[in-house]
Amino acid sequence: MTAMLQLLTDLHVATMAHGDAPYGMIRDAAIAIQDGKIAWVGPQTDVPADFAGLDQRSLGGRVVTPGLIDCHTHIVHGGDRAVEFEMRLNGASYEEVARAGGGIVSTVTATRAASEDELLAQALRRVDVLIAEGVTTIEIKSGYGLDTETELRMLRVARMIADQRPIRVKTTFLGAHATPAEYAGRDDDYIDEVCIPALRAAHAEGLVDAVDGFCEGIAFQPAQIARVFDVARDLGLPVKLHAEQLSNLGGAKLAASYGALSADHIEYLDEPGVRAMADAGTVAVILPGAFYTLRETQQPPLDLLRKHGVPIALATDLNPGTSPLNSILLTMNMGCTLFRMTPEEALRGVTQHAAAALGLTDLGTIAPGQVADLAVWDIAEPAELSYRIGFNPLAFRITGEIA
Amino acid sequence: MTAMLQLLTDLHVATMAHGDAPYGMIRDAAIAIQDGKIAWVGPQTDVPADFAGLDQRSLGGRVVTPGLIDCHTHIVHGGDRAVEFEMRLNGASYEEVARAGGGIVSTVTATRAASEDELLAQALRRVDVLIAEGVTTIEIKSGYGLDTETELRMLRVARMIADQRPIRVKTTFLGAHATPAEYAGRDDDYIDEVCIPALRAAHAEGLVDAVDGFCEGIAFQPAQIARVFDVARDLGLPVKLHAEQLSNLGGAKLAASYGALSADHIEYLDEPGVRAMADAGTVAVILPGAFYTLRETQQPPLDLLRKHGVPIALATDLNPGTSPLNSILLTMNMGCTLFRMTPEEALRGVTQHAAAALGLTDLGTIAPGQVADLAVWDIAEPAELSYRIGFNPLAFRITGEIA
Ligand SMILES: [Zn+2]
Ligand SMILES: [Zn+2]
Repeated sequence: MTAMLQLLTDLHVATMAHGDAPYGMIRDAAIAIQDGKIAWVGPQTDVPADFAGLDQRSLGGRVVTPGLIDCHTHIVHGGDRAVEFEMRLNGASYEEVARAGGGIVSTVTATRAASEDELLAQALRRVDVLIAEGVTTIEIKSGYGLDTETELRMLRVARMIADQRPIRVKTTFLGAHATPAEYAGRDDDYIDEVCIPALRAAHAEGLVDAVDGFCEGIAFQPAQIARVFDVARDLGLPVKLHAEQLSNLGGAKLAASYGALSADHIEYLDEPGVRAMADAGTVAVILPGAFYTLRETQQPPLDLLRKHGVPIALATDLNPGTSPLNSILLTMNMGCTLFRMTPEEALRGVTQHAAAALGLTDLGTIAPGQVADLAVWDIAEPAELSYRIGFNPLAFRITGEIA
Repeated sequence: MTAMLQLLTDLHVATMAHGDAPYGMIRDAAIAIQDGKIAWVGPQTDVPADFAGLDQRSLGGRVVTPGLIDCHTHIVHGGDRAVEFEMRLNGASYEEVARAGGGIVSTVTATRAASEDELLAQALRRVDVLIAEGVTTIEIKSGYGLDTETELRMLRVARMIADQRPIRVKTTFLGAHATPAEYAGRDDDYIDEVCIPALRAAHAEGLVDAVDGFCEGIAFQPAQIARVFDVARDLGLPVKLHAEQLSNLGGAKLAASYGALSADHIEYLDEPGVRAMADAGTVAVILPGAFYTLRETQQPPLDLLRKHGVPIALATDLNPGTSPLNSILLTMNMGCTLFRMTPEEALRGVTQHAAAALGLTDLGTIAPGQVADLAVWDIAEPAELSYRIGFNPLAFRITGEIA
């Protein structure tokens, strides 16, 4: 999509990298792109002679940001949970919902029943919404198969998405998401007999970029997560963890001890956990969609994260149960409105810090050598991206090396 | 856009009117449209012979609802408040924001400075987002001019929107929105010298479908609102009121005493106020976008409204300060998530009850004689409209008599 050498002009750029200005902003700037990478960025008056004479494209005074990155999604899944949502609001108890086949079980059933083509078609509808919002990279987790065959099918579908659409995909194996019905009461057996063998099989097929788990009273205990992470370490795969969402089991600390890329949710994280993350370089991934949908009141400890310099990312957590949130822009607004993040933190959370949460160093900022994934917006100030609710000012995306 | 006589087939229809099924649902239904109105709706097996032979259009098993109605917006306004949003999140005090020209003053200044064409162009961007979500009718308020010339300009722009786009517009005069700087400390003089004369002038130009006010400690007192409503009554115009949002001044009761179409916000409404609304047939318009943006905790008294049979509508309150919410679907989700409305109540709140809040009896339901404004959705269950967050499943709209 990008000419071999192109100079973008007449733009303002939130580099998220350059200098001391908020957003790394450069007004009246130009960006040179060569072979899908940023060759130069700076004030338009300073364009080096090498780039000044070449193919120019005016962006008409628009604002450019790094392409947005949704670093935590469950976007591949079967079915939806609208009927369960309605039952609950009509006063059904959790027991009644469960009897009607609701809860994560219903998503596991629907995902197991869905073919690769069906999963792909359903996921692409959701992916297209994110692309239309300027997203250029997305993370996708398995975790609704809970058997080897379906876990691998989910990851294959995740890989296919990168072939079908101009978007980068990072896959995460999340076999330790829940224990399936056939292993009820035998969590340890599930980990040893299904989760770990499925991880090895998925890795052997090249389907795994990272390994995740759900560490919670209603899910897996730290010792069980550690067994999965030990295998990840053997395989040379980075880890991340759903941790401290509903209680504090020390999951973030455990993840940090494995040098985790990220600990996600973390409403109940305490200061020792924050310190461990800071020491390990583990990113905090904040997921306001789940907080909003579950009507949680426990706020993630943003001040502690800031104090200890832990990078803060923001993501949709797009999933059919606790966060059917299909908008990265709304996620940014929720980060500001619900958690009092600043608009700059919100934008950094879906660019630079989201890239870090995926172990990507060549995305998420606009600087020489970085991949030229850009989002171009019909706005005057970057704060507009967080301020508006349900309004999408994307003009278009530019993607670096995607064919 | 609609053939003189057309039979829509292969659909499921949430009539919001028919029989006892939730949503007035008819599965495997057909809808006959004649001259832009619903001629017949019912099971496809029962199509009367009159309609069976004519121009048929299959909707492929999609779900049809009434076209959605956003019954409370401030969609015509100059500028935005993104910088103020950012200042607040960066820790600025209200005083600092005010010194920087923030607050409603900034919107009044920007609106006064904007030409008709500029106001129209900016509003159309927002209107188009609502149209893409299946909205077919929208209410638009004045109230950022606060002088005769600008109040009338806002209402003229509102009327123009109905010419420029396939959408119905109902205008509301909201001169009693705030006291402008030039009348600071002289609220009564503003009402008498500007608001009431502007109302008369706007009415003389045919620009006013209803009259509204903001009754609140930080805005106008009931006695001031009553003076405006007396004029509305003289002019034969229906009234509505921003009431009980931040405190209980008895605004809803006052509005009901004028037979108001609606009382809007009403977080602090008490049971006597609810009773007065029930007696007067006044609709309760719930505005979750403002509740969310202002991080309010006082819930509107939905159980009391249900108990007394007050119709409950839902709207965006789309405005640049307290609710930059440009999505009617997200409004439905917020009604469910924040206020525990059921998905059926949410859909009724943006169809049948929203029509009632605008005094419209021929819109908001699908029944013989009603205007054929329809929204056609790629969903299986109407609950999906409230369940998803930031995902728009609209297939297309069908509008009745709009040219
Ligand atoms: Zn998750
Ligand atoms: Zn309002």
